[in-house]
Amino acid sequence: MSSIFGTLFKISTFGESHCKGVGVVIDGCPPSLSLTEDDIQVQLDRRRPGQSDVTTARDEKDKVSILSGTENGVTLGTPIGLFVANRDQRPDDYADMSSIPRPSHADYSYQMKYGIRASSGGGRSSARETIGRVAAGAIAEKILNERYGIEIISWVNSVGNISVNNLDLDEISRNLVDKSLVRCPDLRIGELMMQAIKDAKNSHDSLGGVVSCICKNVPAGWGEPVFDKIEAKLAQAMMSLPATKGFEIGSGFSGTRVPGSEHNDMFFKNGNVLGTRTNNSGGVQGGITNGEPIIFNIAFKPPATIGKPQETVDLDGIPVTLEARGRHDPCVVPRAVPIVETMTALVLIDLALRQQSRIMFDNAE
Amino acid sequence: MSSIFGTLFKISTFGESHCKGVGVVIDGCPPSLSLTEDDIQVQLDRRRPGQSDVTTARDEKDKVSILSGTENGVTLGTPIGLFVANRDQRPDDYADMSSIPRPSHADYSYQMKYGIRASSGGGRSSARETIGRVAAGAIAEKILNERYGIEIISWVNSVGNISVNNLDLDEISRNLVDKSLVRCPDLRIGELMMQAIKDAKNSHDSLGGVVSCICKNVPAGWGEPVFDKIEAKLAQAMMSLPATKGFEIGSGFSGTRVPGSEHNDMFFKNGNVLGTRTNNSGGVQGGITNGEPIIFNIAFKPPATIGKPQETVDLDGIPVTLEARGRHDPCVVPRAVPIVETMTALVLIDLALRQQSRIMFDNAE
Amino acid sequence: MSSIFGTLFKISTFGESHCKGVGVVIDGCPPSLSLTEDDIQVQLDRRRPGQSDVTTARDEKDKVSILSGTENGVTLGTPIGLFVANRDQRPDDYADMSSIPRPSHADYSYQMKYGIRASSGGGRSSARETIGRVAAGAIAEKILNERYGIEIISWVNSVGNISVNNLDLDEISRNLVDKSLVRCPDLRIGELMMQAIKDAKNSHDSLGGVVSCICKNVPAGWGEPVFDKIEAKLAQAMMSLPATKGFEIGSGFSGTRVPGSEHNDMFFKNGNVLGTRTNNSGGVQGGITNGEPIIFNIAFKPPATIGKPQETVDLDGIPVTLEARGRHDPCVVPRAVPIVETMTALVLIDLALRQQSRIMFDNAE
Amino acid sequence: MSSIFGTLFKISTFGESHCKGVGVVIDGCPPSLSLTEDDIQVQLDRRRPGQSDVTTARDEKDKVSILSGTENGVTLGTPIGLFVANRDQRPDDYADMSSIPRPSHADYSYQMKYGIRASSGGGRSSARETIGRVAAGAIAEKILNERYGIEIISWVNSVGNISVNNLDLDEISRNLVDKSLVRCPDLRIGELMMQAIKDAKNSHDSLGGVVSCICKNVPAGWGEPVFDKIEAKLAQAMMSLPATKGFEIGSGFSGTRVPGSEHNDMFFKNGNVLGTRTNNSGGVQGGITNGEPIIFNIAFKPPATIGKPQETVDLDGIPVTLEARGRHDPCVVPRAVPIVETMTALVLIDLALRQQSRIMFDNAE
Repeated sequence: MSSIFGTLFKISTFGESHCKGVGVVIDGCPPSLSLTEDDIQVQLDRRRPGQSDVTTARDEKDKVSILSGTENGVTLGTPIGLFVANRDQRPDDYADMSSIPRPSHADYSYQMKYGIRASSGGGRSSARETIGRVAAGAIAEKILNERYGIEIISWVNSVGNISVNNLDLDEISRNLVDKSLVRCPDLRIGELMMQAIKDAKNSHDSLGGVVSCICKNVPAGWGEPVFDKIEAKLAQAMMSLPATKGFEIGSGFSGTRVPGSEHNDMFFKNGNVLGTRTNNSGGVQGGITNGEPIIFNIAFKPPATIGKPQETVDLDGIPVTLEARGRHDPCVVPRAVPIVETMTALVLIDLALRQQSRIMFDNAE
Repeated sequence: MSSIFGTLFKISTFGESHCKGVGVVIDGCPPSLSLTEDDIQVQLDRRRPGQSDVTTARDEKDKVSILSGTENGVTLGTPIGLFVANRDQRPDDYADMSSIPRPSHADYSYQMKYGIRASSGGGRSSARETIGRVAAGAIAEKILNERYGIEIISWVNSVGNISVNNLDLDEISRNLVDKSLVRCPDLRIGELMMQAIKDAKNSHDSLGGVVSCICKNVPAGWGEPVFDKIEAKLAQAMMSLPATKGFEIGSGFSGTRVPGSEHNDMFFKNGNVLGTRTNNSGGVQGGITNGEPIIFNIAFKPPATIGKPQETVDLDGIPVTLEARGRHDPCVVPRAVPIVETMTALVLIDLALRQQSRIMFDNAE
Repeated sequence: MSSIFGTLFKISTFGESHCKGVGVVIDGCPPSLSLTEDDIQVQLDRRRPGQSDVTTARDEKDKVSILSGTENGVTLGTPIGLFVANRDQRPDDYADMSSIPRPSHADYSYQMKYGIRASSGGGRSSARETIGRVAAGAIAEKILNERYGIEIISWVNSVGNISVNNLDLDEISRNLVDKSLVRCPDLRIGELMMQAIKDAKNSHDSLGGVVSCICKNVPAGWGEPVFDKIEAKLAQAMMSLPATKGFEIGSGFSGTRVPGSEHNDMFFKNGNVLGTRTNNSGGVQGGITNGEPIIFNIAFKPPATIGKPQETVDLDGIPVTLEARGRHDPCVVPRAVPIVETMTALVLIDLALRQQSRIMFDNAE
Repeated sequence: MSSIFGTLFKISTFGESHCKGVGVVIDGCPPSLSLTEDDIQVQLDRRRPGQSDVTTARDEKDKVSILSGTENGVTLGTPIGLFVANRDQRPDDYADMSSIPRPSHADYSYQMKYGIRASSGGGRSSARETIGRVAAGAIAEKILNERYGIEIISWVNSVGNISVNNLDLDEISRNLVDKSLVRCPDLRIGELMMQAIKDAKNSHDSLGGVVSCICKNVPAGWGEPVFDKIEAKLAQAMMSLPATKGFEIGSGFSGTRVPGSEHNDMFFKNGNVLGTRTNNSGGVQGGITNGEPIIFNIAFKPPATIGKPQETVDLDGIPVTLEARGRHDPCVVPRAVPIVETMTALVLIDLALRQQSRIMFDNAE
C-alpha cells in the first residue's frame, strides 16, 4: 500500500467500501485558511453516487466531518482529519462472487499481492476509495483559488464513441459542465452520451470515456524537474485513479504526428510576461508551467463489473459463468469529473508550496 | 528540483549538458550482485548520440565509471556512484540564443522558475540528463533479469505518420529491434521511418513518434495502491522523460471506445496460476500486476530545437526570427528506446523490493 | 507540520487536545495479522491519564475504534484508520492564559511559526497528541512479538534526584514495571519517587526524570546507515516526544569517560552467532543491530505547566504573574513508559520491513 | 542503506574509504547562490586527517570538485554534484583483520546485514563517509549565514575525564576554537586534553569526548512537529554520525533533576519579540525554535580501533588476540567539530525551506 501522496501538502487516505468509513489526514495544510465542512462537501456531493439514473443507485449522504486541525472555522496548520461514514453497507451483494475473481477487476491481483482481500465490494480498489482524495483536494482547490485565482475545470469529453469537438475553452465553467447530467459542456452531445449510457445499462454492459481538464491562471514556474515535473506528477495522480488507462497533456498522442515547425508554440509579449500563440505544450515546458492553461486528457476504461454473463474461471481455475449483481455504474466518467479536479488540485498545491520554498537570492533584498 | 526517484531503490541524478559531467548515486541497491562498468555501458552505448546519421553528430564516448559501492566486481549494498564525463563541450553553439527562449523548449519556464538558467544547451532539460537514469536503470535491469527472468523490450512504434501494425509481441527482442537503425522491429516500416527522419533533417524540421514497451515475466502482485499503482509510477517515470506528452497502458485511449463486455479480460487456468485470454489490461489490474505482460506506449513530441526560422520574441518581448544552430536530433525516439527500458526497470525494481518487504503472515511459518 | 513517520510502515497522526478526537492512519501494515481493538487498547490504557493520584485527573476512556483496514479481525494490507474521541473537553480551563505564552511551553513558538495557535490546551504540543503514536505502535509491537519474539520494556529510571541502581535487566518485565504506580521496577525506589511527585504536586511544582528502555531478541542486521542508523531513528523518535531533552544509547554520555580498551565489547561464540561479553554498544554497532539487547535512556524535563506563580510577560511584552490552572501532570514519566515502548516499536518495525526488502543474492538460490 | 537526508534540501552521499572516492549530490539547493570550491574546501580542511600529531597520519588532500549545478560560480538550482577522490589507499593495512570483526566496530553488524562487507577500512562505517556531509553542509552554512546571519559554532567540551566549565558562549567563535589543536575554546583545558590524547596514543588506546554546538541568530518558527521537531532532526543527524552515543539539548539529562519552577525559562520583552531570561530549553520549545540560541551536546565514544591487544573471536567463533594496525585516530572529537557544524547546517537549511513554503494567509495581502 502506498496511500500517502505529496511532499509538503501530504495526504494519507484510508477506508474501503464496507468498513466503518473512509477518510483522509492532511499534513501540511497552511494555517489561517478559513475552512468548514461546507467547503469540502460541495465536491463530495458532485462525486456522490445516486445523482442521476445513470449512476449507481447507492444513496449515501457522504457527509464529511472535520475531526481535527481547525478551530472556529480556521486552519491551525496542524493535521486535518476528515471522515465520511459508510452508511449503506450491503456486503451480501458481492458475497457469492468472492471465490470468482471478476475479469479486469482487482480481485485476483489483490489476492496475489496480499494473500487476502476484502470479501466484498473491491476493498481499496473500489471507487469509494476516492472520497479521501476528493475531500482533501477540495481544500487544496480553495487555497489555489483564494491565493492564485486558479480555476480547475474538468468535463466529460467522450463516452464510448461519442465525443465533443471544437469546445470553446474560454467559455467552459463548472456551471456549464453541471448543466449536463453526464457533465459534458456540449449539452447536445451530452444528451447522446446519456442515451448511450442508458443503452449500455439496459444491456447490462458498461462504457468508458475520456475526461478532460483545464487549469487556468496557474503561475509560470511550478513543477520540479526531473522526476516531479508537473506532467509527471499529474500523470501519476491521474493514473492512480481507478479505471484509468491513459494520460496525455497538450497535443498528446496526436502531437506525435506533426512536425516540430508546426508543433512549436511561438512566444509573444503578453503584458509583463511572455505568452504563446498556440498551446500544444499544454501549459508545460521542460516539466515546468509556462503560464498558459494546463490542459490534459485521461482515458477511463469501461467498468469491469457488468451484468452480462462472462465465461471465466474461479480462483481454483474451474470454469464458471459470472453475472455480476450489486450496484455498479455503467459508466464512471460523469462522477470522475470532480475526482479529476480535486486530484489535480492536490498536485498543484504541492508544487506551489515547493516552489514557494525556493529562496530566490536575486530577489532576496 | 526533484532529481531523486524511488522508495527503496533510490536514484539521485545530477549533471547537465555542459558542466564536468553527469551521473547518478544509487541508494539501496541490493548487495552481492556482480557488477562492472560493462554491465552499464551497453545501455549507455544504445542511448549515445552519433549512432547513425539521423541522430545528433555529437560523438561522446559516454564511458561510465563506478565511483563507489562495489569491490572486486560485486555490490556491497552501499551507495553506488556512477559518473560519465562530458567531453565534447561546445557552449558557443548555443550562445547567441541565450536571450531568446526557444519555442516549446524549457528556456523560458526554467528562467521563470529559478530566475537563472544554464547559458547553453538546455541545462537539466537537455536529453543528456537521462544518462544518470540509464546507468542506474541498467543495474536495475540486471537484477530483474537475474532474479526474476524479466525482459523489458522497447521499440519505436511510430514516427510522425508512419506506424507499425500487427507486431507479434512474442517474437520481439532487443536483437530484432537493434537490427533497425530507428529501432523499429518491422524492418520495412523502419526504412520508411528512416527516410522520413532524413527528410525532416534536410528541411531543418523535426519529427515525433510513439515508443512502445513490453515487460515479460513480471510476477503478479507488484504495485502499491493507491498512489503508487504500477501504472501510476510508470506514467510518472515516462512523463518525466524529456519531450513526452502522453502515456497509455494496455488498451489505453482506444479502450475507452469499446464496451466492458468486449474489454474485460477473461481468466483461464494457466498452469498453477490464472492467466487472461486477452490483455486489454496491459498486465495490470487495480494497480497491481496480474502476471500478464505489461504493455504501454509513450508519446514523444517532435524536438523543439529546429533549424527552420521561427517567428518568436526574446525575453524582453522583442520580435525576432530564430534559426537554431548547434547539434540537435531531428527525432529522438530511436535513442529513447533504451531510456524507456531502463526507466521502466527503475520502476519495477522499486516495486519488487517494496513487495518483498511485505510480511505474509499466512506464509510465515 | 510533519506528522508522518516511517518509510514502509508509515503512520500519519492527527488531532489535538480539544477537537473531536485524535487518531492515526497506518499505511503499510502487513496483511493477515489478527487484530482487534483489544490489541491496541492495552497500551492506550497504560498511557491514559487518571491512573493514579499523581497523574492528571482528566478521566477519558480513550477507547479506540478501528475505522478501516481489517475484516473479521484480520488486517487486509490496506490503510488502518484508528480513532479516539475526545470526551472531556474543558477549554475554559486554559482560556485566560491565551494571551500569556506559558514559559517553556510551546505557545510562543507555535504562534511564531503558524501565526495562529489553538486557543487552549496546547494543541498538537499537548501530550494528547501521542495517542495516535501509541495506537499505531501497539500494532507494531504485536507484529514484532509474534514474528520475531521481540520484547520491548520501558521503565522509569529516575524522577528528579531519585534514581534506580543495579537493575537486573534479565528480570525486568512489564508486569514488574506495572507493579509500581510510577512504573519503577525497583518497588522501594518507586515508593520514594511516588512521594517526591506528591510533594511536587502539593507545592504546585513539577518533576522530570529519565525513562529507560530495553529491546530483547532483536535480530542482527536492522538499521539503515548512514542517515537511518537505528540509533539515529530511535533518537529522532524519542526526541519527537513531548518534553524530551536527551537521548543516549548503550554507555551514552558516561561512555565518553572511559578509554577504548575498557569500552570495547569483546565478541564470543554464542551458539551459531557471535555475542558480546559486555554491551556498552547498547546493541548497536555502525548503526546496525548486532543481536544484543538494545538499551537506551531518554531525558524528560519537568512539565512546563505549573501552578506556582511565574513572573513572565504576555504576547505584548507586558509583565504578568502567571499561575496555571487546569489539569496537568506534576510528572509525565510514568505515563511516558508505554509511549516510549510503542514509539520504539514503530522504529523497529519500519527497519525490519526495510531489511526484509533487501535481496540477498548469495541466499537467493 | 539510507544515504539520503532532507525533505527539500536533499543530500545523497556515497563512497567509502578505499574506492575511487567519496561525494554527495545535493538536490534542492536554491538558485543564484554564489558558490565555488573554496566555499566548500574550508570545512573539508578542518575535517581532514593529519592536521596534528594527535590525528591519524593519513594525509589526503581531500580536494573537492564541483561536478555540476553551477555556472560561472553561481548555483543554477539544479543538482550539485561534489566529489573528493581517494588518493591514499592502503588496503593491506586492514587485510589480515578481515576475518576478525573488530570489537565495537561495524564489521560484524555489516556482515550480518548485507552478507558481505568491504574487505578493509570499514567501508561506509569509516569516518571518511562524512566527507559528503561536510561538503554539502558547507553550502548549507553559506546560505544560512548569508540569508539569516546564522552562526554555527561547535567545540570540544570534554575529552575523557577532562572537561570545560563556565564557557562564555557570547565569546565563542570558530577562530577561538581553532586556536586549540583539539578545538577546545578554553586553551588551558585544551592543553590538558591534548596531553591526554597523546598519552592514549602512546598506550595504544583511545579516548571519547563530548562535542558541543551553538547556533546563533536562528529565527523563531523553525521545526516541523511532531516527527520533525527541530530537536528530533538534530538528534537523528548527530546520532547518524560515526561513534556517537548520546545527544542532549538545552538542559538535557541534568535538566531532569531540577523542578519545573527552576527549569522554566521566563519570557521578557526583547525589542520586538520575546526573549527568555534563561535558556534551559536550548532554543527550542514544542519542537520549534523560539529565537534563543540552540545549544546541544553530542557524546562520542572512544574509537573502537585500538592497538592494544584484545581477546575476541573471529567470524567462526575461534578465539584470537587482535592488535589493530593501520592508521586510526586515538580521539575523533577534534575532527568531529566541523562535521557537527555542517550536519547541523543541513538540518537547519531543510527546516528553513520547509518553513518558507508555508503560506501565511494572514500575511498574504
